[in-house]
Amino acid sequence: MLEKYQDRIRLPLLRNKVTTAAAAAEWVQDGMTVGMSGFTRAGDVKKVPLALADRARHEKLKITLITGASLGHDVDKVLTEAGALARRMPFQADPVLRAAINRGEVMYIDQHLSETVEMLRTRQIAPIDIAIVEAIAITETGALIPSTSVGNSASFAILADKVIVEINLTQSLELEGLHDIFIPKHRPQREPIPLMTPHDRIGTTAIEIPFEKIVAIVITDEKDSSSTILPADAETAAIASHLVNFFKQEVALGRLTDSLLPIQAGIGTIANAVMMGFVDSPFEHLTMYSEVLQDSTFDLFDAGKLDFASGSSITLSREKSKQVFGDITRYKDRLVLRPQEVTNHPEVIRRLGIIAINTALEADIYGNVNSTHVLGTHMMNGIGGSGDFARNAYLSVFATKSIAKGGKISSIVPMVSHVDHTEHDVDILVTEIGLADLRGLAPRERAQVIINQCVAEPYRAMLNEYVAKANQGGGQTPHVLEQAFSWHTRYRDTGSMLPEHTHPAPEIELIRLLSEPFESPETQAV
Amino acid sequence: MLEKYQDRIRLPLLRNKVTTAAAAAEWVQDGMTVGMSGFTRAGDVKKVPLALADRARHEKLKITLITGASLGHDVDKVLTEAGALARRMPFQADPVLRAAINRGEVMYIDQHLSETVEMLRTRQIAPIDIAIVEAIAITETGALIPSTSVGNSASFAILADKVIVEINLTQSLELEGLHDIFIPKHRPQREPIPLMTPHDRIGTTAIEIPFEKIVAIVITDEKDSSSTILPADAETAAIASHLVNFFKQEVALGRLTDSLLPIQAGIGTIANAVMMGFVDSPFEHLTMYSEVLQDSTFDLFDAGKLDFASGSSITLSREKSKQVFGDITRYKDRLVLRPQEVTNHPEVIRRLGIIAINTALEADIYGNVNSTHVLGTHMMNGIGGSGDFARNAYLSVFATKSIAKGGKISSIVPMVSHVDHTEHDVDILVTEIGLADLRGLAPRERAQVIINQCVAEPYRAMLNEYVAKANQGGGQTPHVLEQAFSWHTRYRDTGSMLPEHTHPAPEIELIRLLSEPFESPETQAV
Repeated sequence: MLEKYQDRIRLPLLRNKVTTAAAAAEWVQDGMTVGMSGFTRAGDVKKVPLALADRARHEKLKITLITGASLGHDVDKVLTEAGALARRMPFQADPVLRAAINRGEVMYIDQHLSETVEMLRTRQIAPIDIAIVEAIAITETGALIPSTSVGNSASFAILADKVIVEINLTQSLELEGLHDIFIPKHRPQREPIPLMTPHDRIGTTAIEIPFEKIVAIVITDEKDSSSTILPADAETAAIASHLVNFFKQEVALGRLTDSLLPIQAGIGTIANAVMMGFVDSPFEHLTMYSEVLQDSTFDLFDAGKLDFASGSSITLSREKSKQVFGDITRYKDRLVLRPQEVTNHPEVIRRLGIIAINTALEADIYGNVNSTHVLGTHMMNGIGGSGDFARNAYLSVFATKSIAKGGKISSIVPMVSHVDHTEHDVDILVTEIGLADLRGLAPRERAQVIINQCVAEPYRAMLNEYVAKANQGGGQTPHVLEQAFSWHTRYRDTGSMLPEHTHPAPEIELIRLLSEPFESPETQAV
Repeated sequence: MLEKYQDRIRLPLLRNKVTTAAAAAEWVQDGMTVGMSGFTRAGDVKKVPLALADRARHEKLKITLITGASLGHDVDKVLTEAGALARRMPFQADPVLRAAINRGEVMYIDQHLSETVEMLRTRQIAPIDIAIVEAIAITETGALIPSTSVGNSASFAILADKVIVEINLTQSLELEGLHDIFIPKHRPQREPIPLMTPHDRIGTTAIEIPFEKIVAIVITDEKDSSSTILPADAETAAIASHLVNFFKQEVALGRLTDSLLPIQAGIGTIANAVMMGFVDSPFEHLTMYSEVLQDSTFDLFDAGKLDFASGSSITLSREKSKQVFGDITRYKDRLVLRPQEVTNHPEVIRRLGIIAINTALEADIYGNVNSTHVLGTHMMNGIGGSGDFARNAYLSVFATKSIAKGGKISSIVPMVSHVDHTEHDVDILVTEIGLADLRGLAPRERAQVIINQCVAEPYRAMLNEYVAKANQGGGQTPHVLEQAFSWHTRYRDTGSMLPEHTHPAPEIELIRLLSEPFESPETQAV
């Protein structure tokens, strides 16, 4: 049987390491810190985590789980339900885990995605005891060839004493050569990252580790989970259109060429839709220097708009996945997957002059952004890489629909209930209503532009009323502290941010108003 | 008369550009954007701004004033009082200007100090019409040799069509050779910044511009304003001691060597005192990669603790200034002054692995930091470079005294009233009470460590009470939104964050408690 893995396990003496997931999982002990591959549902390990959950149901087994970013296959859910997670970092997007985090049962360390391996490398947090990493193959020297994501896998494998490899037979061997593994040196020997364009290759195509560290190999044959993004709707299309118009203007002003600058786009429906807006744009020879490559990346390739895309993972819908991975050679020379430390590195982001496009859960009148916490307290997913990009980018854009829950929530509030991105890091705020260019504006000016450009009635009037009252108290950033969160507490108590006497009538008004410009029934489903 | 400036204006044909401040100021027109030298009261222009103010008192003259950072000589005050400032960026520290900003009369754009010239270079904000720069001399080719700061002066002079130079005769010609002017190229030609240690020299010693751009030269003979830092007191000494002990532990754990990593220290009394703590520490061969070099830098040189210091300005007390500038050759080979874009560059900060030590106005139980806004609305100074460093550092420390105004203000509050630094960017929080190591902790854990380590009674009990109530509502970051700012509004309304029934008695208790460990009467003067 082992001969059939010749192309997958090319160092023969490693073939006797092939074992069951259950046997491999025995290497993990209670209290350990485990580094697992996986970044936005791509390239995660599929079997060993489930075997760990099986053990945790019958014995005391609580681990600290560190990944690249979110996992697929309900791994976070299964591990949570089995009680196997004591601590989790640096990102997650699972409803069951999220609930456990918000109950205070799992300690969740929400981190800038560029920082996790820096902290591990400098031993500022507990070391990785064991790495569990998906690969398409192990080379003749024992190096690991990653699959659809790199994330933190390379550093996990390098830093851990023991490595378990899941060889995923459903991941095409054609992926070999796609990756560029570059690991910064320890300080003070650290040198510049020699990356001058998104397409520069600066590392190796596999993760080079001493093969003796590989303690177990598990064969799997499950595909990555598909992405859960929704198709563009009228609002996301309007957001995309506002942004395309803005970039046209920047080109007209001579600030950008019509290939713009390398683009980073956050994960999710809005970011994907924004990128889709470039398909019918006048821009040419675009490049991406991003974390996650979603469906839109490949639509942009197919439209002839995009020259090159650098990311840390490829996360696609079921249909797009079939198309792309069914013919990956078609795209391969225009793609590279890097460690998230490199995709998100402040050095590279500032040097390349990234246009960073991320999504806001809510923003306030001064342009502070909450990306993570519902009503200021309950974690949604995590800050992810948005902070790496927004702080160091050439231009930092945040996008959100102006309302949620059928208009009962305004995404633009007097004061965000949690700050992930301060006003200093938000150059452009865009909703389906319009785009606020905040560059070079003082907070009082930002408030006027945001309210006028990004908000519809009745919230616009409500915000103007708040501003008028706040201005009476003066300040660089006027606020009425007693009322700063009154919209949030009203929503919590009444189910709507609208004052009781105004709904439901204005709510309907608002929806009608929003849907008009797009003549689309989808807006009813906001 | 002009011969006497031979050593100061070495390109003879420029000597006929010497004129009065009033005549030079005529080059500035209403509505212009003016870039002036000056960073933390060092190397600012002394005469032309006052001549501008004179004009503004009699004619309509409102400018956008961009500097490196804060200015000395009451320049911001005089310009404000003359009504000459329409807009101001990226930093200030003047009480009169601050008041005008808080009244909404001057639009103040508070920026990360690394970003201003990036935005100018890429024309994302209105261009510099004229640069007014202090120099110790103009070279044979018309290049400007800066004085005690570089700040943004080099880029101002390069980007502006017209340059006014103030030659300051009180600034020693021995400063020549101290500066290292490196300007990143325009994208996409931009290359790595080839700086691998704080002492690397990567640029030129003068600001090279076409000499034809120099439209006027004004001779001045006023010293820089002295720094306003206060001597260390019992609290700042305790903060320094906690930090030294923390670093000892990090060395013992093998995370750092006893030369640590390059240190950045913010401006002001607390940061200066913290650096003074290294004088009697066991650490050797320290280096600084900072913005402002204060008194403590030279005390550390004199103590044989510091090998090299890189900064963008030298800002000293009157006494220290006499000593240092009276014998600058003694220190010169251990010093370099760089553009603030380079001192604060994310690329260099992450590469070198900076230990960033900045001060907080207030912090909250989760480790979010407010550096700028009193009661969430009124600007104090500005975020300065703290965001450049805190986001990209190896280790980000924030220091504050635990109380202010004789105990009527707790610097640790349930929720900061303004966020400059999110919990992601705060690794260590230290007060005179103790040090909270927040690395790898989830928010609920951070709250316990901060309250236990950094806060004294009665605020400790009050914060524990808040946490208990907040936890009932659950969440990753529990809060009671209605009460999140109740300490701030209570202070605003009653003059104290303590509930009315508790003061004045517990206030006295608190002061007593704080002063005990230090056996010092100074704590009475908190």
